[in-house]
Amino acid sequence: MSEPFDAVDVIRTKRDRHHLSDAQIDWVIDAYTRGVVAEEQMSALAMAILLNGMSRGEISRWTQAMIASGERMDFSSLTRPTADKHSTGGVGDKITLPLAPLVAAFGVAVPQLSGRGLGHTGGTLDKLESIPGWRAALSNEDMLAQLDDVGAVICAAGAGLAPADKKLYALRDVTSTVEAVPLIASSIMSKKIAEGTGALVLDVKVGSGAFMKELAQARELARTMVELGTDAGVRTVALLTDMSVPLGRTAGNALEVRESVEVLDGGGPDDVVDLTVALAVEMLAAAGRPADEDDVRRALSDGRAMDVWRRMIAAQGGDPDAPLRTATHQHQVVADRDGVVTELDAYAVGVAAWRLGAGRSRKEDPVQAGAGVEIHARPGEQVAAGQPVLTLHTDTPERFERALDALDGGWSLGAVGTAVSRRPIVLDRLH
Amino acid sequence: MSEPFDAVDVIRTKRDRHHLSDAQIDWVIDAYTRGVVAEEQMSALAMAILLNGMSRGEISRWTQAMIASGERMDFSSLTRPTADKHSTGGVGDKITLPLAPLVAAFGVAVPQLSGRGLGHTGGTLDKLESIPGWRAALSNEDMLAQLDDVGAVICAAGAGLAPADKKLYALRDVTSTVEAVPLIASSIMSKKIAEGTGALVLDVKVGSGAFMKELAQARELARTMVELGTDAGVRTVALLTDMSVPLGRTAGNALEVRESVEVLDGGGPDDVVDLTVALAVEMLAAAGRPADEDDVRRALSDGRAMDVWRRMIAAQGGDPDAPLRTATHQHQVVADRDGVVTELDAYAVGVAAWRLGAGRSRKEDPVQAGAGVEIHARPGEQVAAGQPVLTLHTDTPERFERALDALDGGWSLGAVGTAVSRRPIVLDRLH
Repeated sequence: MSEPFDAVDVIRTKRDRHHLSDAQIDWVIDAYTRGVVAEEQMSALAMAILLNGMSRGEISRWTQAMIASGERMDFSSLTRPTADKHSTGGVGDKITLPLAPLVAAFGVAVPQLSGRGLGHTGGTLDKLESIPGWRAALSNEDMLAQLDDVGAVICAAGAGLAPADKKLYALRDVTSTVEAVPLIASSIMSKKIAEGTGALVLDVKVGSGAFMKELAQARELARTMVELGTDAGVRTVALLTDMSVPLGRTAGNALEVRESVEVLDGGGPDDVVDLTVALAVEMLAAAGRPADEDDVRRALSDGRAMDVWRRMIAAQGGDPDAPLRTATHQHQVVADRDGVVTELDAYAVGVAAWRLGAGRSRKEDPVQAGAGVEIHARPGEQVAAGQPVLTLHTDTPERFERALDALDGGWSLGAVGTAVSRRPIVLDRLH
Repeated sequence: MSEPFDAVDVIRTKRDRHHLSDAQIDWVIDAYTRGVVAEEQMSALAMAILLNGMSRGEISRWTQAMIASGERMDFSSLTRPTADKHSTGGVGDKITLPLAPLVAAFGVAVPQLSGRGLGHTGGTLDKLESIPGWRAALSNEDMLAQLDDVGAVICAAGAGLAPADKKLYALRDVTSTVEAVPLIASSIMSKKIAEGTGALVLDVKVGSGAFMKELAQARELARTMVELGTDAGVRTVALLTDMSVPLGRTAGNALEVRESVEVLDGGGPDDVVDLTVALAVEMLAAAGRPADEDDVRRALSDGRAMDVWRRMIAAQGGDPDAPLRTATHQHQVVADRDGVVTELDAYAVGVAAWRLGAGRSRKEDPVQAGAGVEIHARPGEQVAAGQPVLTLHTDTPERFERALDALDGGWSLGAVGTAVSRRPIVLDRLH
């Protein structure tokens, strides 16, 4: 069959700062999925998109074409409304774990298709896999049954959703074309829209530990994604949230599960609780089951969210009562004098946790369940001389040195009494 | 062996508008030649170079790295100085044919490594191959011997010169990254510098039939190439020349050889003669054997250039007296009234000649020796009703229709007496 376009002309269109037509976009995504548009052609197009941008109409069509490259899920048989959350990734970001059961406790179904981690940000599936017996892979039927029965599911996305995105993401990774807002936004939103949720809350992280370091950049990405969701008929809200400091007191798989269970038990660090509650309020409102903040907090303290968590873990083969694995080796970073922690850089902690074995460098690498960083003193908190500021955990103690290198300059201690101001956890809201 | 750089970082450097370091450039060209940098990575880098540009220093280093990817020729054993010419390609551009023997007649050696045509501009080797017996492939030893003996050689460039350029050119062709001045300039100049000539005259064409349609663009390319040549110790001059109208009265292989022989016989169209003489004067001056314009014109009229031509053709197996092939079919485009040709578009004529069989669409296509377009009335010339303006030649008459389509709107006839102004053939000179 002869092709209606030539890849060279499509690339030239964007290279010369013109708009790609709907037909050009539909064709180039489809032909790339079929292997007719070659990898070197798509990478040149991706670079032209990164440098010359795309209009709202082009991004929307590009996203639709990626959705059309695969299957769509259908939640219409559910009796409950659905709401989903997506985070752009951060250090210590375990929010999905308490959030999904919390929202489900209010009668909203939460289908949370998640991924594994790569680089310095952890993956939700890696965290849950530190629970003995828990499995990430579910059939679509099992997923629907669990949503109907338990109300929440966190599982691996099947290969059938937006296969064009899968191929394009791998290409962008090796060609320095990851950091293009149109491509990031369409990659995330094509999967979320194909997944068929009715409401979507985006947690767009900003700061050293996030993909987006600057607020303006993060706001552009958030705005683009909210537009894409809205154009596709999904009620979409975005929160811009701080990622200059790690979330909570842990970064690492089992360490973060433990902290999430503390939150579901009515405790846990303030910032993790505050962000979980803020996102839950947004998801419930977007799903048409509004609840106020006090209601939502009560569901954490009275055990309703914990109840859903236990059923959710058990439904996927996990034992919610099994002890979590701990690493075989620990190393403490201690304060050399009395003081107040004035700074704790999210990126430095993320890289340290990654190097300790909590994350992977290549897709096929294993992760250590127990590895990671435990934070004893967060910015603004006091520590006495000789007391630990951080504890590093790993099964492979030869990793301590490179983890300590990553932390070097990543935290600082001020004089006792130093006032430390912190950004609020939620910086802005777009809808 | 571990690599000193990661392609992703090199691409990011240019993507983010920073300068590539010498070490990055050396590595990326070498690693691409070795296959360590993948095609999709080089295409993303090429697009970033096209859109973000390169400094003079980067282009110079890029060119040196391409030269270093292959062998260099050595003309130091010759007793004569050498001068070379490169044209960026145009319609009816047969200038190399009379020019090489003309310059050689003044004691300067002309090693003219040429290519075959692709698209609407013809290739010098295709033209000469319409001479019965003539062969393009010479060993380096035969080439040197012919330069010493005859003084001029026009032959195919060996595969050993700048192999990185060969690989990169094929990639640029399919990824819309041909039109980047740094990449065009380094592609041309890497081969010319590797060839080892002492002097180089660049004929940079401007107009509809040329690669560069606008004077500013052509001037930038010319300036970049002159800088590259000068930086590499080659005496380099560029002429910007008009390519809005075809050169001379023929476009096609044997047709152009016939016209070139007319020039070598002291006749031929004015524009072909003027440009040949202008380029010869530049080459002789750059080679340190200056001759004035009158001297040079005399060498065309008194048979000295023709004598070198005959020896040059014979040395490569050709018979300079053999009749040239003519196409089996002709079609005349006639004037429907008395008038003056006011316009004859170089691109339209080039595409028509190509479609008639004079050019090729893919590297492996054959060309017809006799095919092409003959021009009876050039802009400013009068024609009577019923008289031919153009004759189309081909061995495959089913091609006439598409050739005529290409010419539709490509020429026009004004009232008798209409004054037609023409741009001078040489528009500017850079050195």
